[in-house]
Amino acid sequence: MVSKFPVIVGHEATGIVESIGEGVTTVQPGDKVIPLFLPQCRECNACRNPDGNLCIRSDITGRGVLADGTTRFTCKGKPVYHFMNTSTFTEYTVVDESSVAKIDDAAPPEKVCLIGCGFSTGYGAAVKTGKVKPGSTCVVFGLGGVGLSVIMGCKSAGASRIIGIDLNKDKFEKAMAVGATECISPKESTKPISEVLSEMTGNNVGYTFEVIGHLETMIDALASCHMNYGTSVVVGAPPSAKMLTYDPMLLFTGRTWKGCVFGGLKSRDDVPKLVIEFLAKKFDLDQLITHVLPFKKINEGFELLNSGQR
Amino acid sequence: MVSKFPVIVGHEATGIVESIGEGVTTVQPGDKVIPLFLPQCRECNACRNPDGNLCIRSDITGRGVLADGTTRFTCKGKPVYHFMNTSTFTEYTVVDESSVAKIDDAAPPEKVCLIGCGFSTGYGAAVKTGKVKPGSTCVVFGLGGVGLSVIMGCKSAGASRIIGIDLNKDKFEKAMAVGATECISPKESTKPISEVLSEMTGNNVGYTFEVIGHLETMIDALASCHMNYGTSVVVGAPPSAKMLTYDPMLLFTGRTWKGCVFGGLKSRDDVPKLVIEFLAKKFDLDQLITHVLPFKKINEGFELLNSGQR
Repeated sequence: MVSKFPVIVGHEATGIVESIGEGVTTVQPGDKVIPLFLPQCRECNACRNPDGNLCIRSDITGRGVLADGTTRFTCKGKPVYHFMNTSTFTEYTVVDESSVAKIDDAAPPEKVCLIGCGFSTGYGAAVKTGKVKPGSTCVVFGLGGVGLSVIMGCKSAGASRIIGIDLNKDKFEKAMAVGATECISPKESTKPISEVLSEMTGNNVGYTFEVIGHLETMIDALASCHMNYGTSVVVGAPPSAKMLTYDPMLLFTGRTWKGCVFGGLKSRDDVPKLVIEFLAKKFDLDQLITHVLPFKKINEGFELLNSGQR
Repeated sequence: MVSKFPVIVGHEATGIVESIGEGVTTVQPGDKVIPLFLPQCRECNACRNPDGNLCIRSDITGRGVLADGTTRFTCKGKPVYHFMNTSTFTEYTVVDESSVAKIDDAAPPEKVCLIGCGFSTGYGAAVKTGKVKPGSTCVVFGLGGVGLSVIMGCKSAGASRIIGIDLNKDKFEKAMAVGATECISPKESTKPISEVLSEMTGNNVGYTFEVIGHLETMIDALASCHMNYGTSVVVGAPPSAKMLTYDPMLLFTGRTWKGCVFGGLKSRDDVPKLVIEFLAKKFDLDQLITHVLPFKKINEGFELLNSGQR
């Protein structure tokens, strides 16, 4: 994601409202909240459309300022920019009312922070964007944290078969724990993965999810869903400024290819609901959490991330 | 479409059942029927899936034989092949039971034959594949017979604004007659058509339909629907063996891109229903008919087609 520097990065968090500005009515000081990198103004075309969620106030171009055009951070008298309306790698931040959702007070902050992006992006891709139907067969390409969340979404939607795919077999155990019914590595066969999956399923893959962000796997995922009634959802962000080349006959015979941001969810509407569903044990965020570190050890967290230990 | 030669071509028709083979139960001699280039066996994965229609018995690879592997035509003792299970440019043909639908006896054959392909392909693309919602804005690229049928589908689905696009302004009058609310030529502006449409609609195009079969207009149509909640349907057949190159960010932000064959309709289920809807004047096929010629003047029909007079 583009960003203007210097910047306070970070976009997943749980927080407590310290104070509110004039005219703010939906949160009060003391409220437990999740900041929303995807705002919901409830007035723009995307907010008004039942299938939309990419609010016009989203800072997708990386302006680094709030919707009113200002930055609220300074360092040594110079402006410091915001990151996607949130800037959460800090003890205090300033966000617009459209970029924050009040959540249930009982929610454990170190867990539900994942509902601010990673979990919801994957879970929503299955339940909202893909609209996975009960009894269907789903395939998830890429078993990182978002991929695991896609699996949880497929399971919650009632999929009867969920196939996880990753080159790294170490990812399989956790994938099975969150709901995958089987896992395979494309390295295990010399055949194209689409053929392997067709044979495994009797040519009946209803949904595929690309959760890697590689152009090659986006095409593989498209080719792997049923040629006529299959849906393939692009969840991984494509590399910037790269074109994708594919055979349009893959689409013409009836496939559906779609993308989503934040799993197609409407942030202020859906984040509080997901927190309640978590508290009701509808899904398990613990599987996505390998380490819990205090804020001052944030750089150790990045080292763990880079070393693949999460 | 691929075909094996020598062949009896033709796939749109209305006919009368002359005789039936052993075990045929859904049609009787004397029944008025429409032959179906897209069969519906009701047993394969595509037939059993509510969103599927590309029956496994479809002859999409151009084998030129019926599902049992035989050809039923000969000329001077040599086999003549079937075209897409139908072969309708003849006075007598042989089709499988899965490739024929009994229709209402009151249906005018020279009109409802269009329900066998062209009309249904366009109409279904709007009502079944695109699932156009009431009050939405639709854009149709290409105003031939199928494009006009897409317009009729959008209108029937309750679209409040239907914009027709063609380089040939002579097509605009008929497009307006069948339901377009306005028509534009891309030649009228130096801006990309997606920008023109965004400005015309306040960035609120819900659905676009490519009914030409050009890769460039497929990308234009995708880019012209709303970046987050827009759906673009590929109706025109892509040129064979050509790859399509596009920016995957167009999809990632939330667009839906889908294709369809026969408008996503299930042939044996939906063709008789469309005939009944036609008889109830739900749509008007007359607008798609410029000439009615006897069978022996079929070549004159092709000349009219090639000269652009239809």
